[in-house]
Amino acid sequence: MRNGLKISFHNQRADQLPVEIVERKGKGHPDVICDRAAEELSIALCKYYLQRYGRIYHHNVDKCILVGGQSNPRFGGGEIVEPIYILLAGRAIGKVKDDVVPLKKIAIDCTWKWMRKEFRYLDPLTDVEIDCKVRPGSTGLVETVEEEIPISNDTSVGVSYAPMSELEKVVYGIEDKLNSRDVKRKFPAIGEDIKVMGVRRNGRIYITIACAMISSEVGDEKEYAEMKDAVRQISAEVASEICDRKVIVRVNTADNPRKKIYYLTVTGTSAEHGDDGEAGRGNRVNGLITPYRPMTMEAAAGKNPISHVGKLYSVAARRIAEELVEMGLEEVYCYMVSQIGKPITEPQVVNISAYTKKSEKEVEEMSRTVVRDVLEEIPDMWKSFLQRKFVIF
Amino acid sequence: MRNGLKISFHNQRADQLPVEIVERKGKGHPDVICDRAAEELSIALCKYYLQRYGRIYHHNVDKCILVGGQSNPRFGGGEIVEPIYILLAGRAIGKVKDDVVPLKKIAIDCTWKWMRKEFRYLDPLTDVEIDCKVRPGSTGLVETVEEEIPISNDTSVGVSYAPMSELEKVVYGIEDKLNSRDVKRKFPAIGEDIKVMGVRRNGRIYITIACAMISSEVGDEKEYAEMKDAVRQISAEVASEICDRKVIVRVNTADNPRKKIYYLTVTGTSAEHGDDGEAGRGNRVNGLITPYRPMTMEAAAGKNPISHVGKLYSVAARRIAEELVEMGLEEVYCYMVSQIGKPITEPQVVNISAYTKKSEKEVEEMSRTVVRDVLEEIPDMWKSFLQRKFVIF
Amino acid sequence: MRNGLKISFHNQRADQLPVEIVERKGKGHPDVICDRAAEELSIALCKYYLQRYGRIYHHNVDKCILVGGQSNPRFGGGEIVEPIYILLAGRAIGKVKDDVVPLKKIAIDCTWKWMRKEFRYLDPLTDVEIDCKVRPGSTGLVETVEEEIPISNDTSVGVSYAPMSELEKVVYGIEDKLNSRDVKRKFPAIGEDIKVMGVRRNGRIYITIACAMISSEVGDEKEYAEMKDAVRQISAEVASEICDRKVIVRVNTADNPRKKIYYLTVTGTSAEHGDDGEAGRGNRVNGLITPYRPMTMEAAAGKNPISHVGKLYSVAARRIAEELVEMGLEEVYCYMVSQIGKPITEPQVVNISAYTKKSEKEVEEMSRTVVRDVLEEIPDMWKSFLQRKFVIF
Amino acid sequence: MRNGLKISFHNQRADQLPVEIVERKGKGHPDVICDRAAEELSIALCKYYLQRYGRIYHHNVDKCILVGGQSNPRFGGGEIVEPIYILLAGRAIGKVKDDVVPLKKIAIDCTWKWMRKEFRYLDPLTDVEIDCKVRPGSTGLVETVEEEIPISNDTSVGVSYAPMSELEKVVYGIEDKLNSRDVKRKFPAIGEDIKVMGVRRNGRIYITIACAMISSEVGDEKEYAEMKDAVRQISAEVASEICDRKVIVRVNTADNPRKKIYYLTVTGTSAEHGDDGEAGRGNRVNGLITPYRPMTMEAAAGKNPISHVGKLYSVAARRIAEELVEMGLEEVYCYMVSQIGKPITEPQVVNISAYTKKSEKEVEEMSRTVVRDVLEEIPDMWKSFLQRKFVIF
Repeated sequence: MRNGLKISFHNQRADQLPVEIVERKGKGHPDVICDRAAEELSIALCKYYLQRYGRIYHHNVDKCILVGGQSNPRFGGGEIVEPIYILLAGRAIGKVKDDVVPLKKIAIDCTWKWMRKEFRYLDPLTDVEIDCKVRPGSTGLVETVEEEIPISNDTSVGVSYAPMSELEKVVYGIEDKLNSRDVKRKFPAIGEDIKVMGVRRNGRIYITIACAMISSEVGDEKEYAEMKDAVRQISAEVASEICDRKVIVRVNTADNPRKKIYYLTVTGTSAEHGDDGEAGRGNRVNGLITPYRPMTMEAAAGKNPISHVGKLYSVAARRIAEELVEMGLEEVYCYMVSQIGKPITEPQVVNISAYTKKSEKEVEEMSRTVVRDVLEEIPDMWKSFLQRKFVIF
Repeated sequence: MRNGLKISFHNQRADQLPVEIVERKGKGHPDVICDRAAEELSIALCKYYLQRYGRIYHHNVDKCILVGGQSNPRFGGGEIVEPIYILLAGRAIGKVKDDVVPLKKIAIDCTWKWMRKEFRYLDPLTDVEIDCKVRPGSTGLVETVEEEIPISNDTSVGVSYAPMSELEKVVYGIEDKLNSRDVKRKFPAIGEDIKVMGVRRNGRIYITIACAMISSEVGDEKEYAEMKDAVRQISAEVASEICDRKVIVRVNTADNPRKKIYYLTVTGTSAEHGDDGEAGRGNRVNGLITPYRPMTMEAAAGKNPISHVGKLYSVAARRIAEELVEMGLEEVYCYMVSQIGKPITEPQVVNISAYTKKSEKEVEEMSRTVVRDVLEEIPDMWKSFLQRKFVIF
Repeated sequence: MRNGLKISFHNQRADQLPVEIVERKGKGHPDVICDRAAEELSIALCKYYLQRYGRIYHHNVDKCILVGGQSNPRFGGGEIVEPIYILLAGRAIGKVKDDVVPLKKIAIDCTWKWMRKEFRYLDPLTDVEIDCKVRPGSTGLVETVEEEIPISNDTSVGVSYAPMSELEKVVYGIEDKLNSRDVKRKFPAIGEDIKVMGVRRNGRIYITIACAMISSEVGDEKEYAEMKDAVRQISAEVASEICDRKVIVRVNTADNPRKKIYYLTVTGTSAEHGDDGEAGRGNRVNGLITPYRPMTMEAAAGKNPISHVGKLYSVAARRIAEELVEMGLEEVYCYMVSQIGKPITEPQVVNISAYTKKSEKEVEEMSRTVVRDVLEEIPDMWKSFLQRKFVIF
Repeated sequence: MRNGLKISFHNQRADQLPVEIVERKGKGHPDVICDRAAEELSIALCKYYLQRYGRIYHHNVDKCILVGGQSNPRFGGGEIVEPIYILLAGRAIGKVKDDVVPLKKIAIDCTWKWMRKEFRYLDPLTDVEIDCKVRPGSTGLVETVEEEIPISNDTSVGVSYAPMSELEKVVYGIEDKLNSRDVKRKFPAIGEDIKVMGVRRNGRIYITIACAMISSEVGDEKEYAEMKDAVRQISAEVASEICDRKVIVRVNTADNPRKKIYYLTVTGTSAEHGDDGEAGRGNRVNGLITPYRPMTMEAAAGKNPISHVGKLYSVAARRIAEELVEMGLEEVYCYMVSQIGKPITEPQVVNISAYTKKSEKEVEEMSRTVVRDVLEEIPDMWKSFLQRKFVIF
C-alpha cells in the first residue's frame, strides 16, 4: 500500500486514566493572538495570490512574536501607555514576474482587520504596533507548488486523535462559552484572554481559569468579585452539561486583594502589560494542549494550505481519527509522516493506534478506506482553510 | 501527601510499538538558535543580578524569534548578503532601586558571545542583527521571587520520561556526533544545522538527515557527494553502536543535481537564507520531539530558574523518571502540575505512569522517595542551570 | 540695554543683486513631511500635557526621518508595494509622578490624523509605517520649564529677515497655489510633493518645478503633458501677479518620454518610492531656502514652544524684521542669540542689519521699541504655535 | 559662456561687521556622528562597488538619525544602560545583474569600524545599535551614473566662501585643538562631543563651549573644575594665536554644582543620554554654521561623489572662493546651481560675489580661469572624497 498504513493498539482510553491534564489558551491569549495573526496572514496571501494571479503561491508565515505593551488598568477605567508589538515573519513569494507583491501592506492590513473584529476593547490602530519581516523564499521551495499534486517540501509529522475525553470537552467548552457572543453581551467585563487548565484526578475535575477582566466595565472590588462568580458559575454549567464528575472551578487564583492585585486589563488581554507570545506555542491543532495525548510541535497556523504537510497532515490525522471513531472504534490516535519529494497524498507512514474490541483485520480494513478517502481530499483542503472551517489552534 | 502523587501504568514500551517517530533539531537549526539565545540570556541575567545585587531577580525571557537572512552560497565560497535578524523578548527586572539594569546591552553582548563560540563560519558581528525588546515585568510577579522557597507563579506542567527508546538514542546520538568536535575537525564542511528525523517501522529504522554543508569547504559536486557519504557513514556507525536494527540513512533528500539544488550554506545554518525560527518550537526538554511520548508545550529555555515551574518541573520530571528506571522500573512517564500560589516544592499532582512488573505498592513506595528527594532539590536547581548542566532543548 | 541690541547696515537689497537663488519644498516633500510630523507631535504633546496636567512639560521632538517606500505607479492606476517608514525621535517628559505618558500612542495617533487630512491619495493606515523612539529627557533640562519666565536651555540662534524679495514671493506663491484647494479641485492629478527652485539672473526668473503627478488621475502620456502645461500656466499666472520680470517655467525636467520616465506617483509624494527625508533639512522658518539670505540650521519644528529659543527666536526675529519694514526700513535682517541660563526674554545679542536711508539713531530707536515689544510677547507665543499660526517650514 | 558666470560685489567683509555668530559642532556631537556615519557609508559603498565591479554605482545615503541612549555617569565611573540607536537610510544600487550587494552588512560593518577608531570610551559593539534601511533606488536615477561625464540628477545648489573670518578661525581652531591627539593624551577626560559657539560684538569675542567630560577620568568636583579650566586655557591659547581681539571663554555654562548638575558622560558624547542627531543638521560643508554667510541646506555627507552636484558643487564653490582669494581678492562668496539633465561640468549659474578693489573686468577674468579649472576637476573629485581629503561637516 502506497500510504504506509500501520495498525496498532493501545490499552487505555484517556477517560480511564487516573490522571489527566488539559489546557486551552483562549482567543485573547498572547500565543493565540500570534497563531491567529499567522493564519490570517496566510489566508490574506492566498486570497491576494488567487485574485491577482489565479493561483496560490508558496508561502510559510508560521512565525510570529508578540511583545507585551504597558497599561494602567484601574477599576472603572485605565489606558494603554505603550502599545503591544507584533512581528510577523516567514517567507512568501514577493514577486511574480515583474509584479511586486505588497507583503508588508497585506500583513498589516489583514492584522488590523481581524483584531478589530475579535477584540471589543482593543483598538489595534493605537494600541498595537504591527511589524512585518516576511521575506521572499528560496526558489527551490517555490517550484513544488506548481505541480498538479503538490510535493511534500519537508519530512513533517501530523498527529491527532478522537474522540475528546470528558475533561478535554470541559476545558474546550468553558473557553468557548466564556468567549461566546452570548456571554460577552451579558457580561461585557469578561475579557478575551481566558486560559483554562483542567486536571482530573480520578473522578474529580479541577478547573483553574485565568480570566482577564475589562477594567472599564468593573467599577470596584465588589463588582470584580461578582464577575469571578459569574465565570465560575458559567463554567460549572458548561461542565455539568458534559459530564457527571465533580468539578471544582477556581478563577484568577493569583489575585491578592490585600495587595490590591487583581487580573484587570484595559483591553481584555494580558498582552497589554508585559505578557508575550509566539505562534506555535499555544494550543495544538485541536485547540488543546494535552500532555497525555500524542502531540507534535508542528504549528499549522501560517503555513500554506496547498503543500505544507505539517499543516495538512495535522488536519487530516484528526479527520481520520474522527471518522474511525464514527465507524465504531472507541478511541483512535493517528500519526502521519510525509516523505519529502513525494506527492502529499503519499505519506511515508500512517499509523492508526486504536482502542477497540475489534480485530486487527477489521481495523485495518476500516482504516484503509478512511485513510484513502481523506488523502484524496487533501489537495482540496485549502478551500476549507480559506473559509476558516478547521479549528487549528 | 503534599505532592499529590498518583501512580498509573501503561502497557507498552516505546520500543515495542510497531511505529515510532522521533525528531531532533541540531544546534544550528533556527528554532534551536532561538532556544539557545533565550537560555543564554537568562543565564547572563542571573549572573548580572547575582554579581551586582547578590540575588537573582525575576525574569522570563523565553520568547525569541529569528528571521532568516539572505545568502549566496556557491561551491568554494559565497557570502551573506542580508544578515539574520534575532529578536529577544520577554521581561526582566529592569530597575533595582534607582539602578537601571542594562537589559539590551546584556542581551546583545551575551548573544554575540555564545554565537561566536558555537558557530565556526558565522560571524555574528556582521552576519546577525540582534535586537532586544525585553521589558520590565509587573510588580505582582516580581515579589514571588523574594520568598524563601519560591512560590509557583503559574499553573504549569512538566512532563518527561525514561529511558530513551533505541530510536530516540539513535536520533539524538547522530546529531550529537555530527556536531561533535571530532567530526568537525575531520569534516569541516559539515554545518551546524542538522535535522534528524527517525521513523521506525517494526524492526527497521529510517533516518532522514538534513545537513547544511559549508560552501567554502566544498569545492564542487563531487566533494559534496563525498560529504553526504561521510554523513551517512558516521550516522550508520552511531546507530550500529546503539542497536541491532536495520538502519537506512538518507541525507539531504531535497537535493536535485539536475536543477543544481544542493543544501549549501555559507555559515552552516539555514537561518542564513530564509529559514525562520522561534524559541520553544523545537526540541522538548530532553532534546527530542516525540509524538509517541508525553510532551508539553512548555519551553524551558529563557525562563528564570528560581521560580518558573514550567522550567523546573520539566527537568524534575525527567530526573524522577530516570531515577525510577535506575531503581528497576522498565519505563516511566512523569507528569507534574504546579499549583499557583503554593511553594514550588508542593505540586498539585505528580503522576507516575510505569511500565513494569512491580506492584502498585512497590512503585508507589519507590516513587514517594524519589519524588520527595527531587522536589527537595528544586530550590537549588538554579545553580545547575547556570552551569548549563541540563539538556533543555 | 538688557537685550544686547546692535545696529548695522547692508548695502544691497536682495532684489538688486544680479543673481538670486530660492527654493521651496512643498508640503508633500519628504523633508517637509518630517518637519510637519515633528511639529504636529509637539502640538499633540502640548495638548495632552495641558489637558491632563494643566501645564506643558518639556519636550524636544525635532528629529524625524522618513525612509521611502516602494510603489508601482502607472497611467490610470498603480499601488504601494512597500509602505513608507517614518521614525519620530526626540525626548519628552514620559512620567508625571506615577502617571505614564503614552508617548508612542500619542505620536502614532497624531501622525495618522494629520496625514489623513493633508494627503488625498495616501492612506496612512496601510501606506505608512509609523515608528516612535521618543525617550524621556534628562532631569536638568526638565526643570527650566518650571520657572515663571522660562530659562534658555541652550545657546541658540534665531535669524530672519523682511521683506521677501520678488523671487521669494514667486517661489513661495507658486507652491502655495499649486497646493491650494482650488487647484486640487480643478486638477486632482497634481500631487502634494511640489518642489520649486527659482533662479534670477538679472531681470529674468527661471522657475524649475518638480511636481509629482497622481497616476490614477492621469490616463496617458497626453493627459500627463496637459497636466504639465496646467502647472506651467498656473505658475506663470502666480508670477505675473507678483512681478513684471520675465519668468520662464520648466516642469518635471527629468522626464524622458523616450525611456518612459515620468514623474508619476500613486500617492502624490516621492516618498512612496525611495525618496527619503529628515526634519530640519527642508525650508527654513519662513518656508524658503535662501542661500543669499541669513539662515540658521535651527529646526523650529518639533521643539517645545515654551522654552526652546531655537524655535522662539526664529519666529521672533521674523516678526522684528517685518515690523521694522512696516515702520519704514526697506530691508531688515535680524539675528538673535540666546544666553544659556538667562530668561528667554533676555537674549545675548539682537543684531539688526538694515538697508535704509534712515540714520543709525533712527534705526536704533525704532528697533529698541520693536525688539522690546516682541521679546515681551515671547512667553505667550506658545499659544500661537498650538494654533498653527506661524509658518515654520 | 557655458558655465553661466555672473560677477557681483559686496561691501563688507565678515570681520568688519559689528556682530558675527559662528558655531561648530565637534566630532562627538550627535549631528556630526550622523554626518560621519553617512559619509563613511558612502565611502564604503564606493570601495565595495569599485573592488567588485570596477566602477562606482549610484547611491545617496545622506539620511541618518541617531536616537540617544541612556547612561549613568558618575565621578570616577558609570555605565551605559541603554544603547544609542543609529539608523542609516537612503538608497543604493543593491543588485548588479544577479549579484546582491550586502548593503546592510556593509553599513553595519563600516559604522562599527569608524566609531571604534574615533571614540576612546565608546564601545560600538555594546553601546550602539546600528540599523540600516538603505533601499535600492529607482532605475531612472541609476543610469545617469553611467555616462562619461555624469549628468546632474537634480537642480542643486553649492555655496561657499573664503577666507574664514577671525571668529570663524577661532571657533574652528578650538574644536580642532580640543579634539586633537595631543590634548586627548594630556587630558583624557575631555570628551569628543564639543560644541563651540562664538559671538563677536565689535572687538570682543565670546566663546561658549559645551564639552562632555569622561566620567571615569574625573574623580570628583574638584577635578571637574580643573578640567574646565584646562579647556578654557587651551581655547584661549588657540584664540590668541589667531587674533588679537579680547576673547572671553565660558565652559559648560549649564552646570549647576548646587543641584549636582555637571556635563559628565561615560563615553564622551551626549548621544549616550537622550541627545538625538540627524545627518545634515550640523556644520555646513566648511565645518561651520555661519548665519552671516551664504549657506545652503545641502548635506554633502552620504551623497555619491560621482554625480551628486549638491556634494560636488559645495566643495567646488569652496575651492573657487579659496583660489580667488589666493589670487588677490579680499573676500569671495561663490554660488553654483546645477541644471538637471546637463553634464555636471556645466552649471546653470556660477555667481562670484567679491569684496575687492579690483574692477569687474579683472574679477571676471580671474574667475573665468578659476571656475573653468575647478569645473574640469569635478569628474575626478571622487578620488579625494574616498581619501577623506575634504572637510565636509
